[in-house]
Order: sequence, then structure tokens, then C-alpha cells
Amino acid sequence: MSANDLLIRMQQGDRLALARLMTLVEARPPEIYRIMSQVARMAKGAPRLGITGPPGAGKSTVIDGLIRLLRSQHKTVGAVAIDPSSPFSGGAVLGDRVRMQDHSIDPGVFIRSLGSRGSHGGISRATMEVALLLDAFGMDEILIETVGVGQTELDIMGIANTTVVVLVPEAGDTVQTLKAGLMEIGDIFVVNKADRDGADRMAAELRAMVEISPSPKEWAAPVLLTSAREGKGLEELLEAVMSHRRHLADRPETEAFRRNYLKRQFLEIILAELCLRLDSTPEIEIIARQILSGAEDPYAAAAELLSDPSRLAQFLRLRDKQ
Amino acid sequence: MSANDLLIRMQQGDRLALARLMTLVEARPPEIYRIMSQVARMAKGAPRLGITGPPGAGKSTVIDGLIRLLRSQHKTVGAVAIDPSSPFSGGAVLGDRVRMQDHSIDPGVFIRSLGSRGSHGGISRATMEVALLLDAFGMDEILIETVGVGQTELDIMGIANTTVVVLVPEAGDTVQTLKAGLMEIGDIFVVNKADRDGADRMAAELRAMVEISPSPKEWAAPVLLTSAREGKGLEELLEAVMSHRRHLADRPETEAFRRNYLKRQFLEIILAELCLRLDSTPEIEIIARQILSGAEDPYAAAAELLSDPSRLAQFLRLRDKQ
Repeated sequence: MSANDLLIRMQQGDRLALARLMTLVEARPPEIYRIMSQVARMAKGAPRLGITGPPGAGKSTVIDGLIRLLRSQHKTVGAVAIDPSSPFSGGAVLGDRVRMQDHSIDPGVFIRSLGSRGSHGGISRATMEVALLLDAFGMDEILIETVGVGQTELDIMGIANTTVVVLVPEAGDTVQTLKAGLMEIGDIFVVNKADRDGADRMAAELRAMVEISPSPKEWAAPVLLTSAREGKGLEELLEAVMSHRRHLADRPETEAFRRNYLKRQFLEIILAELCLRLDSTPEIEIIARQILSGAEDPYAAAAELLSDPSRLAQFLRLRDKQ
Repeated sequence: MSANDLLIRMQQGDRLALARLMTLVEARPPEIYRIMSQVARMAKGAPRLGITGPPGAGKSTVIDGLIRLLRSQHKTVGAVAIDPSSPFSGGAVLGDRVRMQDHSIDPGVFIRSLGSRGSHGGISRATMEVALLLDAFGMDEILIETVGVGQTELDIMGIANTTVVVLVPEAGDTVQTLKAGLMEIGDIFVVNKADRDGADRMAAELRAMVEISPSPKEWAAPVLLTSAREGKGLEELLEAVMSHRRHLADRPETEAFRRNYLKRQFLEIILAELCLRLDSTPEIEIIARQILSGAEDPYAAAAELLSDPSRLAQFLRLRDKQ
């Protein structure tokens, strides 16, 4: 089936076509730009809600609960889970994912896991693109789950309009939480598994930290308690998300956020292509061997290539070989 | 002081010069390639030991203990901590870091924290370069700490020769651990805070998982118990690290690892420069505005630029304006 057929079928609500387009996004055939350009024009601009936090905090259960709640409000939901799976195994079958499969028979829900393989902004580009496909498919809400507290979360900031940080009472002492650099990332904090010891203390500490944090966005991040497995606190969480969106709608920086997002999206598309071109240049292997032999070092080799525009242009396929 | 003076002083053991060179690496002045080329030639190839795991696992305490142990063996140690700090605050002062400052009066130890700001492989490039500087400074051992279980860990795989994954008994059920995709990343697993409930059970589960994991490297990752705060189990950990190094020394893929590392290092240097050039092109802002206005979408704009080699070459400063 041609990419055009896939696009038409996706617009008609064909989930298999949507899934195959997502696979194309990862495979990156040359026509990807033309395809995604059409996808970008189909998208209606559904809000992106980021859910992040350390492993074991119950993010997937929170997302599962949010999906149920949104469905009860007759909203359709797309979810992207960034799964820091192995570069070898290509992603394990996960307990949480299995639980989420409950939604797989619901035509109003589509969930996609993305491996965090690839480099040079690969995962944030792929996340942006899968979210865009879900948006073009017509989903009302896009949820993005990231595991961990590393770079991924910093990336989500540029992708999600609202970011929820999910923690658990035993997430460790407050210093550890601060350390994770989550304070400025979260628009909303959730202490999940709130029936466990220490939940109230942790929420109080988080509230104190929100108060002393600089708030460039003039938004005081609420700290909520949930027991996602029992469905407790999720309505309040969704209410807080909506409240944050109303806040954003009035803010001048929302346009700056959007412009910055689009600029970044554009730059990442270009850089992903340049990286592919460079990486597939046979001369790169030769340079790597020279570096390995000690005849060159990476910096001298880089400086040499960067100072030779015509050779670099050739590597980047910006001109024909002479 | 000129960069050359800094290099000479660094070679003479001047720590301030080393620190200033690290700052240069982050600031990226045009002469960075020339400087780092000299640094690369000074480096002796000290082994890189990666320490990773979720927040609260006690990684910093493990590193602190390893530093003490290595110092007692009269080895000098450089450490890089990747600190997923905020893009706003630029890095909080951390409890763990403060603890590590104990080493700051020891001339045989140098610790540097790196913020995980920047994109397009910025953090792994910066980590590689700080490690290279520590190597050129003459440190016998380079430790690299990353927080989180996201992309950062996948990145560390390419940087560290040996990767230790530190977990705690309450790190959650085994599925969550698998989920974190840590199995293939770890050359050695440590269950820290081993005096807590569940440590033995967790170690047993990890051992079972190591057994069923595919082992492309023909190395059965040992699972060790430590109580880093009391210094327990650290000698065994260091012994396991040495054993892994002996294993690597005999393996043919070690050269492939090294060639791949050098190739990646080279590619990241080139891409970082191309990203800087693209991002500072005034036309990019104009394109972003066109996209925002809806006159263009990011993919059509990217396809247009990529299909116009002379315009792209101009954006990348590969030719003069015509």
C-alpha cells in the first residue's frame, strides 16, 4: 500500500494504517517529509499532556486511570510511552503495557510504545511525530509517558503543554527529589500510592519546595495525592490539568512556546537527516579507523572536515562528487 | 590566559586550569577543536567506569566509597556526574555533591558535575570531553555517574567500558526493573542498602534475569550486595570491575567498541557544530514564524531546505552567500 493510501485510510479511522505510518516514522524512508507534511496539515492541535517520574511510581496506572476518565467524558485518547528499552532486545513486553492492552479493543484509544534507541534527538523527534500522527488521526487528547528522571524529562518539556510529575511516598528524601531536577519540570505534582506511609509528609515537602521555587510561568504547581490503582484523586488531577491549560491560554509565553516547539521540530528534522547522511558516508569509517590507529584524533579530524566546506558539503550530499 | 597556557598548566597538574578547560568545553569557542585535539593526544586512555541507576539508589555514596578505595590503592580518580538539573536554575547544590566535596581537598581527585541541558547529543558529547580532559590531566580512573533510567543510560553504554547498575531493594517489582531496560546495560549489578528488607530476594531475582538474558558479550553480569554508606561490599565491587576489564581485554569486540566510540565522538563533534550553525541562522527564525502562521509546516519546510543544497550549504556556512 502506498503512503498516500495509508494517509487516506488513517483519515478514515483505520487503526492499522495509523500503526503502519508510525512504523514509517521510525524507518524514515525518503518520502517521510512529504508524508509528515500532510500529517502536520491534518493535525488539529490536540493538547499534549506529559507524565513523568521515576520507575515504580505508577505512571502507567495514572495514565490508565486518566484514559478511563477521559473516555467516560467521550474524549478520544492517544498515548505515547517512551520506553527506555534495550538497544539489543528492542523492547521487552512490559507488565504495565500489558495492563494497558485493556484499552486495545477500544477504538477511541491508541497506545504506542517507542524505544529510546537512536541518538541525536531521535527519541524526541520520534515522540513529536507519533504525537502528531495521533493528533492527525483525530485524538482529542495526547498523553506522553516518559520513564526516568534524565534527559528524557527535559525533552518532554518542549513537547508537552502540561507536565505531570508522578512520585511515590518512598521516592526518597527530598534532596533526592530536588536532585532529579523535577521541580521546574512539573506543572503538577502527584504523590501516588497515597495510602502508603509518608505520603502527606512528602506532599507537604513538595508544596514547600514549590513555594520557594522561582516561578517564571506565574503558575503555582499544585501537589495532589492519588491512589491511581483505586482510581482515587484522578478527577482532581484532570481538573488541575484543565486549570493549567486555562492558565496557559491567557499567557503570552504560550505563543513563544509554540514557536520554539516548531523551530525545534524543524531543526531536529534537518539534523536527523544530516546525521543519517554523515553516518552513511563510507569516508566516515575511514576517518574512524585513522583515529583508532592514532594517526588522527577526533577533534583534529573534525576541525579538518569543518574547515573544508566542499568536502563537508560532499559528505552531506550538498554537492556532487568532483 | 590563552588556551595554550591553560593546556600547559593543566599538564603541570594545575586544577584551576583543568576546571577552566572544562568550562571552555561547555562554552564551545571556535578554537575548541584545536584545544581538544591537543587534549586527545595527551590522554593516556584511562578506563571509564559508568555508574547508573534510579535516584535514591545511593549511586553517589557508591562512587564516594569507590573513590576512597581507589585512593587507598594510590590511584588518582576523576569523576563526572551528569546532573539532570533544570534548564532554568542551571543546577542545584546537591546533598550528595556536598558529601563528595570531602574529596575536594585531595589533589588526587577531581569531580565535575554536568547539567543535562542542551540537545542533539550535547550531554554525551560534554561527558566524553570532560572525561577526556580528566584522562589528559593524568587521572588513573574515570568514573561517570548518571541519574535516571532514560536515554542517559543508553548513552553511557557508548562512553563507559564497564557499566555498574545500582539498585535498592525497594526499587519496585522486578517487572519495573526490566522495564527500565537496565538488564542489557549493566555489566555489574549492585543491590545497595543491602541491610534493608528484600535485598536478598531482589539479588536472587536479578541473578535469575541475568541468566535468561541474551549475553552478546559472553559475560555473565555478577549481582553484588553493598551497603555503601558503611563501606560494605565495595572491595568486591571493585574486584568485579577489574574482572570485567580483564574479560574485555581478551575480547575482539573491544576494538569494535573503541572504533565505534571514536566514530561517534567524531560525528557528535561535527553535528554539534552543524546544529550551532543552523540554530544561529537568522532565516531559521523566519521559517519558524512561517510555520507558526500556518503558511508552512515543519516537514514541508524541512523537505524544501533539504532539497535545496545550495541554500542548506549556505545555512551551514559551507559556502558564501551569492
